[in-house]
Amino acid sequence: MRTVFWDYENNRLQMIDQRRLPIALEVYSCHTYEETVTAIRNMVIRGAPAIGVCAAFALVLAANQSNSIKVKGLLSDLKKARNDLQNTRPTAINLAWGLEQVMKDLENFHGSVEELRTIILTKAQNLADDDVILNKRIATFGADLIENGDTIIHHCNTGALAAVDWGTALGSIRMAHEQGKHVHVLVDETRPRLQGSRLTAWELEQYDIPYDIISDNMAGYFLRSGIVNKVMFGADRVAANGDIANKIGTYMLALAAHENQIPVYAFLPTSTLDCALENGDLIPIEERPQDEVLEIYINGERATPKGAHARNPAFDVTPNHLIDAIITEKGVIFPPYRKSIDNLLNN
Amino acid sequence: MRTVFWDYENNRLQMIDQRRLPIALEVYSCHTYEETVTAIRNMVIRGAPAIGVCAAFALVLAANQSNSIKVKGLLSDLKKARNDLQNTRPTAINLAWGLEQVMKDLENFHGSVEELRTIILTKAQNLADDDVILNKRIATFGADLIENGDTIIHHCNTGALAAVDWGTALGSIRMAHEQGKHVHVLVDETRPRLQGSRLTAWELEQYDIPYDIISDNMAGYFLRSGIVNKVMFGADRVAANGDIANKIGTYMLALAAHENQIPVYAFLPTSTLDCALENGDLIPIEERPQDEVLEIYINGERATPKGAHARNPAFDVTPNHLIDAIITEKGVIFPPYRKSIDNLLNN
Repeated sequence: MRTVFWDYENNRLQMIDQRRLPIALEVYSCHTYEETVTAIRNMVIRGAPAIGVCAAFALVLAANQSNSIKVKGLLSDLKKARNDLQNTRPTAINLAWGLEQVMKDLENFHGSVEELRTIILTKAQNLADDDVILNKRIATFGADLIENGDTIIHHCNTGALAAVDWGTALGSIRMAHEQGKHVHVLVDETRPRLQGSRLTAWELEQYDIPYDIISDNMAGYFLRSGIVNKVMFGADRVAANGDIANKIGTYMLALAAHENQIPVYAFLPTSTLDCALENGDLIPIEERPQDEVLEIYINGERATPKGAHARNPAFDVTPNHLIDAIITEKGVIFPPYRKSIDNLLNN
Repeated sequence: MRTVFWDYENNRLQMIDQRRLPIALEVYSCHTYEETVTAIRNMVIRGAPAIGVCAAFALVLAANQSNSIKVKGLLSDLKKARNDLQNTRPTAINLAWGLEQVMKDLENFHGSVEELRTIILTKAQNLADDDVILNKRIATFGADLIENGDTIIHHCNTGALAAVDWGTALGSIRMAHEQGKHVHVLVDETRPRLQGSRLTAWELEQYDIPYDIISDNMAGYFLRSGIVNKVMFGADRVAANGDIANKIGTYMLALAAHENQIPVYAFLPTSTLDCALENGDLIPIEERPQDEVLEIYINGERATPKGAHARNPAFDVTPNHLIDAIITEKGVIFPPYRKSIDNLLNN
C-alpha cells in the first residue's frame, strides 16, 4: 500500500494514518481539502515528499468541492485551497512544490470545468507515480554508498512512510539490504514525535533489517565508540549553499558525526532544493504545539509537571560543512554545494 | 526534606522516591542494605552525590543486620555489603567514594560491636551533612558565573534531588535566582529516564525559576540561535585529564555549545574526581535495561513496535577540550585540567 493515494472508486484521498503506527496500520480518508489541511497539520501524514503529493491530491478534492461552473471560478477556489494547504507546514518546501506542480500552466487553460478537474487529478497522480520512481533512483545511488557490514545511524523517518513509497535514506538502506549487504541500523527515536521509534523501527521490522532504537542523545556515544560507519537522514528544505533544514536533532547528530570523522549523507529529491534561499538561516522553522513535548508518559504517568512549559521547534538547520554528500535522484553531489547544486539542476 | 536521610526513630534509611516525581512526593524506606541495593539499581534514588551518601547509610543497615558479636565478623559482613552496593552502578565514582569514607580506618578499631555501629552511623551522617555544605560552596562559586538575564541549558538533574540537598549546577542556578538574578532555564528532558522533565522541571517549579522543557535534540537549535549564554551539567566521574563522564547526551550538548562558542560548565564535588584514571575512555559506562528506551508512551500508546530492540548506555564521556570550567567546592578550575585538578587536590 502506498503512503498516500487517490481512491478512484470513491473519489477521495486516502493515506496511512501515521499517528497510529506502530500499534495499528489504518487508512485515513479525506473527502474535502479542509480535512486534508487538518490531516497535514496534525501529522496524520508527514515526510517532505509525502506531504507534497498529499497536498497535490488535496487540490483534486478542492476542485471537486468547487460549485463553480466556470473555469475562472474553479481556479479561484483552487487558489484559496492552495493557500490554506501551503500554510499548514512552513518548513518543507516540497509542500509548496507539489502545489505548484499542479497549479502551473492552468491560467491559460481553455476547456470545461470537468476537463480541468480531470487534468488536476492526472497531474497529482503523475506526481505520486513520479515520486516512487525518484525515490528508487535515490535509493539506487544511496545503496552504492553502503558497504557490507555497515552500522548506520538514521534520524527520523525517511522510508516508504515519508514518501509515496520506498523512501530516500531508509529506502537506500532497504535497497542495500535487498542487494544482500548486511547492515545494522541505530534508529534515533527522534523526539518529540518519535518518528524513529514509531515509524522507522516499524518499517525495519517489515524489511527484516536488524536495528536497535536509541534515544537521540545517545548518538554521540556510539559515534565516539567507533562502531558507526555512516549517518543518514532526509531533508525538508535545502538552501542554495547546501545548508539543510531537517527534523530537529539533525544538526547535533551531524556535528557529532563530523567531529568523529563519520560521513554524513543527506537524501532528498531535487524538489527539496530551494535555490531562492541563499543559506539555511533563511529557511522558516516551524514551532509546533508544546504538548508534543509535554505529553510523554513512562511507567503509566506523565513525565512532566502540571503546568510545565516547553519549546518545540520541529526542525533545525545543519550547515553545509557538516554534510559529506547529498544524494538525489539525479546523482550524488559533494561540496562545494553552491556549485554542485547549480550543476545538478542545470545539466 | 533531604533527598536521603537516616530515620533515627525507626533505625531505617529513607529517601525521596524519584521514580514517582513529578506526580507524587513520596518517601521510600529501606530496612536492609539489600533493599538499598535494589533502590539504587532501580533508581529510586539517583544523582552521583546522592547515591554516594545513600550507600554510606546502607552500611549502617548492614551493620545493624549483622549477627556477629565480634568486630571482625561485623567487618566481614560490611565488606560483603560494600561489594554488593558498589556493584549496583559502575559509572559514578561517588558511590565507591562514599563507601570508602565509611569503611576506612575501621580495620584497626578496638572496641565493641555496638561502638562500631555507632561510629559507622556517625560517619555516614557526617558525610550527609558535609554534602549539603559542599553543595552550597559549589553553588556559591557557580552563582558567581551566572549573569543577570542568562539563558542556560541544563542537562539531567543536578538539583537538591541529585545530592543530599541543594545541588550543584542546578544549585548554582537556584543560588543566582535567590541573589535576584533573572535566569531562564532550557531544561533538557534527558531521555530515556527523563530526569530533566520529571525532576529538574519539578524543582524549578518549587523555586519559581522560569524554564521551558526541550527535548535533548533541540539544544543545538537553541545554541545556534544565539539566545543561550551558558550550558551547565553535573558529573558522575572525572578522569585525571578532565574528561567527564556524565548522563548520556552530555557529550552532544557540550559539542554543540563549543561549536557555537557558548561556555560549558561542569559542576561537581571533588569526590567525583578519579585521578586513578588517566582519561575518560577508561571510565566504565553502565548500559541499563533496554525497556527504559522502549517503554515510552504518547497518545496513550507505546511508541515502539512489539519485539523492538534498543541500546541504553546511561552515560557518555565529554572530552576535556569541550569543558570551559569545572566548578567544585574548592573553587573553579580551568584547562589544562591535568594541572589544575592536581593543584586543586594538593593545595
